[in-house]
Amino acid sequence: MFKLYYTPNTCALASHIALEQTGAAYEAVRVDFASGGQRRPEYLAINPKGRVPALVTERGVLTETPAILAFIAQSYPQARLAPVEEPFAFAQAQEFNSYLCSTVHVAHAHRMRGTRWSEDPATIEGMKRGAPKSVAAAFGAIEEGMLKGPWVMGEAYTICDAYLFTLAQWLEADGVDTGKLPRVMDHRSRVAAMPAVRKAIEHELRQAG
Amino acid sequence: MFKLYYTPNTCALASHIALEQTGAAYEAVRVDFASGGQRRPEYLAINPKGRVPALVTERGVLTETPAILAFIAQSYPQARLAPVEEPFAFAQAQEFNSYLCSTVHVAHAHRMRGTRWSEDPATIEGMKRGAPKSVAAAFGAIEEGMLKGPWVMGEAYTICDAYLFTLAQWLEADGVDTGKLPRVMDHRSRVAAMPAVRKAIEHELRQAG
Repeated sequence: MFKLYYTPNTCALASHIALEQTGAAYEAVRVDFASGGQRRPEYLAINPKGRVPALVTERGVLTETPAILAFIAQSYPQARLAPVEEPFAFAQAQEFNSYLCSTVHVAHAHRMRGTRWSEDPATIEGMKRGAPKSVAAAFGAIEEGMLKGPWVMGEAYTICDAYLFTLAQWLEADGVDTGKLPRVMDHRSRVAAMPAVRKAIEHELRQAG
Repeated sequence: MFKLYYTPNTCALASHIALEQTGAAYEAVRVDFASGGQRRPEYLAINPKGRVPALVTERGVLTETPAILAFIAQSYPQARLAPVEEPFAFAQAQEFNSYLCSTVHVAHAHRMRGTRWSEDPATIEGMKRGAPKSVAAAFGAIEEGMLKGPWVMGEAYTICDAYLFTLAQWLEADGVDTGKLPRVMDHRSRVAAMPAVRKAIEHELRQAG
């Protein structure tokens, strides 16, 4: 039995979707960012970073989306969420997820989380202004090459698709012209229609409401 | 036979060290950032991102340090560079490496690579000013908890150690007070003394000189 700590509208959705797709028993527990839930001692005891997601397993707690996604895929090979038996193909999936966390998500974070890198209001404001362009550039590289089609890794759906879908939720709010990303947007629609994805999103909305 | 594209004083050193520690046959090829080598068509054909590292394998090219490190560890299990047979322990190593790429390296990049996120000179200057504090905070979390000791993951040396060592090379240049990081600095010294690490660094310096 896993316990996934998440906040709606964060990258935790990717892990939520992956868990749902394995058929594993899990409980999704909401951390309320608005009231500072991620900074409460109870939560910091689970994840000292004060971020989501955090996956509580019987062996201990895991954080960081790429690590959680790979763990889920390796723990449930029958769900076929990654080519876990082939080191090179697995590395390609990891390469994509690493790009999402260190380039795409980071570009996005400059819009809302500039305080991570500066205390100066003018600098934080400047980072916010820069976000649409850097997020667009990061997604442009996905549009033009990394997204092989129909799924990220090609013929097979993987954890990369859940993660890309999750970050693509933020495109409009980040001020990106989605008309220039037809393949990414088509991918987003197809993932959104998957039953497990709808179930994970509906659960998050229900708990939030 | 692998080919590793690297630039001295970049995160590519982590992959260089890991390759050296496997005993695998590889060639390390220098990409000259100073003359814009990473933007030349020949290199962009290998890595369209125009970054290092890039690992050319017989199956194709891999980029992104966490993916390359996990691939090396999985491809050479006898080198025991990660607990590749245990999904949870492997995920813990991946969690640490993901933190290094998306938090530690990104904080560092605000000092030298602000143009990734803004075109505004004042914002770029502001990011530079913020780097010492955010890099110190990121390493502080490693000092206080993530580095289990004696190695990152505890008793066994792993790919996490090569990666942490690599990013810890930049502490002084990033303006971080290393006196507050005694465990990180002790770890850095111990990794620096490993024969494979010395060999990788000497190779990079020799090619650069």
